[in-house]
Amino acid sequence: MSPTNQEPLLHRPESQNSGETAAGIEEEDALLTGQRTGKQAPATANKTRRWREIGLFVWALVATAVVVVLAVVWQHNQQTGGGHDNGGGDGGKGKGGSGKKNLIFMVSDGMGPTSLTLTRSWRQYTEQLGWDNTLVLDDYLIGQSRTRSTSSLITDSAAGATAFSCGEKSYNGAISVTPDFEPCGSVMEAAKRMGYTTGLVVTTRITDATPAVFASHVRKREMEDEIALQMVGETHPLGRMVDLMMGGGRCHFITNSTEGSCRSDGTDVAKIAKDKHGFKLVSDRKGFDKLSASTELPLLALIPMEDTPYEIDRRFQNDTYPSLAEMTKTSLKLLAAATKDTEKGFFVMIEGSRIDHAGHANDPAAQVHEVLAYDHAMKEVLDFIDASDVPTLMVSTSDHETGGLATARQLHDAYPEYLWYPGVLANTSHSASYLSREYHDHLHSESENLNAYLKNLLKESLGIHDPSLDEIESLVTKPERAAYTFADMVSRRAQTGWSTHGHSGADVNIYSSDPEAAAALVGNHENTDVGGFLRTYLGVGREVERVTAELKKYTLSSSGVEGGWLGPVPEEDERLDGQDHLDHYAGDHKTRKVKKWEHAHGEEKRCNVCGV
Amino acid sequence: MSPTNQEPLLHRPESQNSGETAAGIEEEDALLTGQRTGKQAPATANKTRRWREIGLFVWALVATAVVVVLAVVWQHNQQTGGGHDNGGGDGGKGKGGSGKKNLIFMVSDGMGPTSLTLTRSWRQYTEQLGWDNTLVLDDYLIGQSRTRSTSSLITDSAAGATAFSCGEKSYNGAISVTPDFEPCGSVMEAAKRMGYTTGLVVTTRITDATPAVFASHVRKREMEDEIALQMVGETHPLGRMVDLMMGGGRCHFITNSTEGSCRSDGTDVAKIAKDKHGFKLVSDRKGFDKLSASTELPLLALIPMEDTPYEIDRRFQNDTYPSLAEMTKTSLKLLAAATKDTEKGFFVMIEGSRIDHAGHANDPAAQVHEVLAYDHAMKEVLDFIDASDVPTLMVSTSDHETGGLATARQLHDAYPEYLWYPGVLANTSHSASYLSREYHDHLHSESENLNAYLKNLLKESLGIHDPSLDEIESLVTKPERAAYTFADMVSRRAQTGWSTHGHSGADVNIYSSDPEAAAALVGNHENTDVGGFLRTYLGVGREVERVTAELKKYTLSSSGVEGGWLGPVPEEDERLDGQDHLDHYAGDHKTRKVKKWEHAHGEEKRCNVCGV
Repeated sequence: MSPTNQEPLLHRPESQNSGETAAGIEEEDALLTGQRTGKQAPATANKTRRWREIGLFVWALVATAVVVVLAVVWQHNQQTGGGHDNGGGDGGKGKGGSGKKNLIFMVSDGMGPTSLTLTRSWRQYTEQLGWDNTLVLDDYLIGQSRTRSTSSLITDSAAGATAFSCGEKSYNGAISVTPDFEPCGSVMEAAKRMGYTTGLVVTTRITDATPAVFASHVRKREMEDEIALQMVGETHPLGRMVDLMMGGGRCHFITNSTEGSCRSDGTDVAKIAKDKHGFKLVSDRKGFDKLSASTELPLLALIPMEDTPYEIDRRFQNDTYPSLAEMTKTSLKLLAAATKDTEKGFFVMIEGSRIDHAGHANDPAAQVHEVLAYDHAMKEVLDFIDASDVPTLMVSTSDHETGGLATARQLHDAYPEYLWYPGVLANTSHSASYLSREYHDHLHSESENLNAYLKNLLKESLGIHDPSLDEIESLVTKPERAAYTFADMVSRRAQTGWSTHGHSGADVNIYSSDPEAAAALVGNHENTDVGGFLRTYLGVGREVERVTAELKKYTLSSSGVEGGWLGPVPEEDERLDGQDHLDHYAGDHKTRKVKKWEHAHGEEKRCNVCGV
Repeated sequence: MSPTNQEPLLHRPESQNSGETAAGIEEEDALLTGQRTGKQAPATANKTRRWREIGLFVWALVATAVVVVLAVVWQHNQQTGGGHDNGGGDGGKGKGGSGKKNLIFMVSDGMGPTSLTLTRSWRQYTEQLGWDNTLVLDDYLIGQSRTRSTSSLITDSAAGATAFSCGEKSYNGAISVTPDFEPCGSVMEAAKRMGYTTGLVVTTRITDATPAVFASHVRKREMEDEIALQMVGETHPLGRMVDLMMGGGRCHFITNSTEGSCRSDGTDVAKIAKDKHGFKLVSDRKGFDKLSASTELPLLALIPMEDTPYEIDRRFQNDTYPSLAEMTKTSLKLLAAATKDTEKGFFVMIEGSRIDHAGHANDPAAQVHEVLAYDHAMKEVLDFIDASDVPTLMVSTSDHETGGLATARQLHDAYPEYLWYPGVLANTSHSASYLSREYHDHLHSESENLNAYLKNLLKESLGIHDPSLDEIESLVTKPERAAYTFADMVSRRAQTGWSTHGHSGADVNIYSSDPEAAAALVGNHENTDVGGFLRTYLGVGREVERVTAELKKYTLSSSGVEGGWLGPVPEEDERLDGQDHLDHYAGDHKTRKVKKWEHAHGEEKRCNVCGV
């Protein structure tokens, strides 16, 4: 830049106001070049003037230099999102230059890059859009995340989410504890203690791994009864860390004497949350609809006992369950209202939890609806950001890919055509899991004319008019595998492929509303970099360290639960990824209806993953 | 920025050299504020001085403003890669401000995002690196590309590459022709005509779809005999468009009376290239090693008759075949030398062609070596850019994903552990394709003790000590499927999944050496945006249009070949993706040994894709 920088100083600028004489110009040239002019003047006056003019010149030069340096530095900061330090600094880049800001961290659980291709093409087909019509997410791609855990090349959601909460890799099954089974402070705990208002919004159980890591610490993700108690502040060493919780999993908050409970004890966590920790409780759609900007936090709004139904099914039960987009909109309204007059803003984690479940179920129709629901939620987030006076950043990523999804599937030995059929997904009206439950209900009431019933069900709900004899026979003889069979029938006809009912190791995408503010996440990154960024953006890096120290101190002094408040150290070879109680009844992820099926039919207790 | 901008002008700067007196300061203040001083002086001298000082002040102000504006604009241009217009402008961003520049376009054929995960983890395992040790590519990720063609949600390489060459979507099988079967000008043709030196470097046949689209136009990619003639300039309406061609596929350049030829006619394309179009010919490693900065272009360096062997096999035949990295280094040296004194730089397309073939073969061991070879080639490109005085940009992407690769594979009904085994890939010494050829050679010489032979082959070459009875039986009874069986045995043991032997629709990654210069490709884009960027960066947008117009004019007047120089319009339902002559003998992509097998065994002519 130096030539540009110098040039105007050496060139004489044209000024309309200077009214220069030839002599004046000659003198000015002398000033610039150091040559004497021929003009005579009294020596002292000349000297004073000369010094003054040199002074003026030096001043102009210094001012110019300062301004240029400032301008460049300013531009550079704009470019790199400067101010995002690595420690406890403010890290504030935002509208109005205020230090107050909000962070919305979105997690698309189990969504790999191919889920986007699948959903985009399905939506183009279904809504008759052009091939260049894209999802909301597509406009915000900034990078990818590498997801492995310490214990495996393929992470589970617990280790994946701990990378976000603690910024550290850990073992599959770890809920904000490190590989040495010690607690690590989470960004949400640090944010809460630094004055931020905090929230968790999910479509699965609020005690499931992804939300759990932000406000609890246990050594095995299955300890959801304990997680519930920590999350409301009852057994968390630092007290209540979350101001707003919205989603499913009420079953862990009600005593085991209540219908629908999945607790192993008689603790009434909801009552404790209300009486001891001040939570307002919401447990149905009516209560949800009443939530407004004047609703005071803390709030515990858990409507489904376990998961919110898949979006493909929920859309017919809108009177019972709010969508992820609705929960997103309402939670942001509440969080904005709660932080209207506070010094700090809010930090909320919003999860599209069941993209993962649809991947586990290998159900492409359920998956595209889940991804689109997430896309709608992101639209709500972006609209909120646009309308907000407080600088607000959205960062979105996945913890891992689920299912090994491919938008191509070879069905026969013959070399495949290059195509897949989104129309098959468009013809399905329900998830395979839902249909499996329907089928089982039918079996419980009557089991005659099964062939005719099944053919009708397939036609009406999956748009399948051509079931093979083998497929019908499989449904009749192995009803416990029905969910997998239904999903496979759709997958095959759509020619979408799956390699597993578990997770895969694929890199996942990162999105942000502001690539400059999230510059540290542009490109390919380790998932721990995402966690590092969250704390840095909020300026709570040092507070995370203080939280970690306090939790460790508490661990030393704690007792009660076996192994202390964190629970027992896992046994060697113990399954820790939370997949040991899959729902073989409904092909669903972590629901608990196996017993019912066993009782009703008294046969094969465990087929594990069926239909593979 | 305004407060910062003003401040130094209103503050008096401290200068150690000004030697200001109180009076001097008073006067200077007067100049700045417009207030009179108490000092008396002759009116005219005072007036002249005053005007001169005001002039000096105005000059300083104007200079400051100019410098600031320039600094900001400069910074802004740095940020946005300014100057990359959409038409035929210069588009010049580069070192030294010169308009001369080079563009290196790299294509990783068939490489999806998961190929990177697979290769990274395998390399970490093999070279005993930490989990945060990444590939060269990983540092340069800038976005993703959507790949569908006009005829399908799943593109073939021809339509995929036509999106790059013409910036337009077309049908599977199209070699730089549009969906109405008309020719479209390619960025390389336009670049050549605008004075750039041009090159194509591949590991497959130089007449295969990806290189072909840059310098030829036909309606079916199978017309490789014609493509060869166009590429050397013999039947191309505009003459020779490529200055350097390096790779495989010599079989299409030699008369069908020569051993190894795959031409259907007696045309000696290599001779025509040499005698009529001035090409220097290189056909072996010795000739390749002699290439130096003094080698004059045009150059046709085709060493393998068809494909360069997979890297996993080539590494043992280094004396015969140069690697992609070596070809990259040599071609860049030659192109740089050829453009040393030219006004324009060079444009080269470098393809890691056989990542795709390893995907078609579902051979994960072959794939990781191909991806790593591509990574090494990118390192050569980056080193060249670092050392080059001419501004040089690297952009890299894939045309599509191949195989539906997943880094997870469920082998049994039992719910899978979350893991896959890179060590299995590390234990293989050769590609499944290579071993299949070895096996067939063995069969031709002797076929006794097959079990023992196979067990030894599996152990020595694939590190497989535990073949099942079924696997051995399959190899013995269906030797024509051996390549697929070998690849499947490795895939299953590594727990890597594949959904097809064809392509999939997954979005693929985009990389660049300079995200600012390639700002138009940051984020998620249609593959045609990549083509649009190439012509814009080179500043040949309008020339592409002129080329298109000339080609269309030629089409109207041309005759000879059936359907004109572009070949016949494809029949309805004609297979156009180039997959109609897979090598069922070796499980390989588009080699021509099927007949040999048929002759030798006189059985099953076509199993299509076997072992699925």
